Amino acid sequence: MPSSASTVAGQTEAELVDRIRRHLPPPPDWLRVAIGDDAAVIEPARNRLDVLSVDALVEGVHFDRRFTPPDAIGHRALAVNLSDLAAMGAEPRLALLSMAIPPAFPLADFDALAAGFARLAAAHHVHLAGGNLTRSPGPLVVDVTVSGTVKPRRAVTRRGARPGDRLYVTGTLGAGTAGLEMLRAGAAGPAGPAEWYLRPQPRVRMGSLIARNRAASAGMDLSDGLADGVRRIAAASGVGVVIDASALPIDPGARDWFEAQGADPVERAVRGGDDYELLVAVRPRHRGRLAAARRHGDVPITEVGICTVEPTLRLRGTRDGQSFDMALPGPEFAHFG
Amino acid sequence: MPSSASTVAGQTEAELVDRIRRHLPPPPDWLRVAIGDDAAVIEPARNRLDVLSVDALVEGVHFDRRFTPPDAIGHRALAVNLSDLAAMGAEPRLALLSMAIPPAFPLADFDALAAGFARLAAAHHVHLAGGNLTRSPGPLVVDVTVSGTVKPRRAVTRRGARPGDRLYVTGTLGAGTAGLEMLRAGAAGPAGPAEWYLRPQPRVRMGSLIARNRAASAGMDLSDGLADGVRRIAAASGVGVVIDASALPIDPGARDWFEAQGADPVERAVRGGDDYELLVAVRPRHRGRLAAARRHGDVPITEVGICTVEPTLRLRGTRDGQSFDMALPGPEFAHFG
Repeated sequence: MPSSASTVAGQTEAELVDRIRRHLPPPPDWLRVAIGDDAAVIEPARNRLDVLSVDALVEGVHFDRRFTPPDAIGHRALAVNLSDLAAMGAEPRLALLSMAIPPAFPLADFDALAAGFARLAAAHHVHLAGGNLTRSPGPLVVDVTVSGTVKPRRAVTRRGARPGDRLYVTGTLGAGTAGLEMLRAGAAGPAGPAEWYLRPQPRVRMGSLIARNRAASAGMDLSDGLADGVRRIAAASGVGVVIDASALPIDPGARDWFEAQGADPVERAVRGGDDYELLVAVRPRHRGRLAAARRHGDVPITEVGICTVEPTLRLRGTRDGQSFDMALPGPEFAHFG
Repeated sequence: MPSSASTVAGQTEAELVDRIRRHLPPPPDWLRVAIGDDAAVIEPARNRLDVLSVDALVEGVHFDRRFTPPDAIGHRALAVNLSDLAAMGAEPRLALLSMAIPPAFPLADFDALAAGFARLAAAHHVHLAGGNLTRSPGPLVVDVTVSGTVKPRRAVTRRGARPGDRLYVTGTLGAGTAGLEMLRAGAAGPAGPAEWYLRPQPRVRMGSLIARNRAASAGMDLSDGLADGVRRIAAASGVGVVIDASALPIDPGARDWFEAQGADPVERAVRGGDDYELLVAVRPRHRGRLAAARRHGDVPITEVGICTVEPTLRLRGTRDGQSFDMALPGPEFAHFG
């Protein structure tokens, strides 16, 4: 076979689309026109609002192919989007996959990327409804649009938190940041933080449970970390926040890694990103609703702070037997350029 | 001001989002949650199907910044997507804008790109509901998702053509190809083919009219040219096609350009892309419906061929007084790599 047969360069877009299709289940009835036409045609869900989000992974910015297997690129590209739907309390329904691909990208990697995407999609009953494939003269770019649904007045936005609301996070913090560093250092094991960084599990079920029983007054996902999430909910809701450092559910593997680097696990877990957990604000009188979601859910939920009238962001706790009360550190990745 | 203030590098994503927002009208009531949250929340249109499409423009593949002004990049990125909705007969409603931007991209160009996008959006009552901005270590990538609506059983797909159906195209052919070549050669005037290449007008109104009165048995847009469109409709519908070379509505400026290059205008207009006109198949008994759409529409429609039982793609006409009957040439851009 000619060498071009082992990269995407020798393929037509239609051939590549067919390779993706092999990983997909048959389209559901509500998907009236699926992949292969100018656009997808979709029957809306009854008595629901649509929820739409888009997020891109760019090679060299969001992933490094030297330590990110292609199936993980496909998984993460969908996961970060499902996480956005989870943050709104929406149930995902379909995705569009738009990729710009360097011609030298191996066909085997293309297939693995599609398989990683399709596996996570199947796990969440998400159907690939369409997309776009084009050549990239530079990095691999994987841009995913997701569409989901939520009942009217159930969508969780960033705006509803009030002073006195408690803040909760799902799962653990710090694994995304630690996992990326472990991969970069060649120190990653087969499980633990590196696996979480590569294949984060979006909190779709918990987000939907929280929205359905109206447990949250506000919420978002922690794609850019707790410091960023707290800042955004506080700004959108017009409140301050105090975070209890001793309550933070830092991932044990991440804690070990941060300490081995001589870093403060609390600071790193607060400032780092890539965790894709949910941050929700809950009115004190709605704690029972959150408890119900927690019982039916598949992930721990931990109280980490409180919303305040005072419009500041604080981090309080004790370190080496000394109590501290400091400004919440900013996110590690604040700037665009 | 520091030099970083004149490029996107010094900006946060939130600051760039604010710069885009300045070009936008207030969101309509059905857009319950717009830009600035994890996802957009949308009230579905009553008794309609949703139509979704995504398409990306990649610098160095789909545009060259040396001769494509930034407003035209924004315009084209939306136009190619609206053209996909027009092909389905859908009325556009909203868009998501996902960009990967080189840090050195000038802020003035960013603003002009947003303005070009927003101007075309306003002309078609399309609302920007969300998006994503990230850094690119390589080319500028502008990925747009559009959502529109169509009445049940009105969507125009590629599948419904039958032998005997006539084929029609909107507008003219060849301007996209000629315009790009004129820009490359530095021979572009202020209007004509180059302007059409830079700022194509998607046939949204005509696509919607054709769908509403069920004039078309099949249709698509000519993003990759007539040869590609004919091939795809023929394959999806299971028919052959004969195109009448003498009937093709070749753009006069494009014809002049092709002839000046010593090229055959028919071949170039058939094989070239970037025209963003519509190709529709119409049953002979539905010609009255097409005539009605034409009367209410804003663009000429020309009959260019017929669908056949014989599963071949033919181009017939006369050249230099000699009649010819040849295989339809393939599209100029068939391969991915």
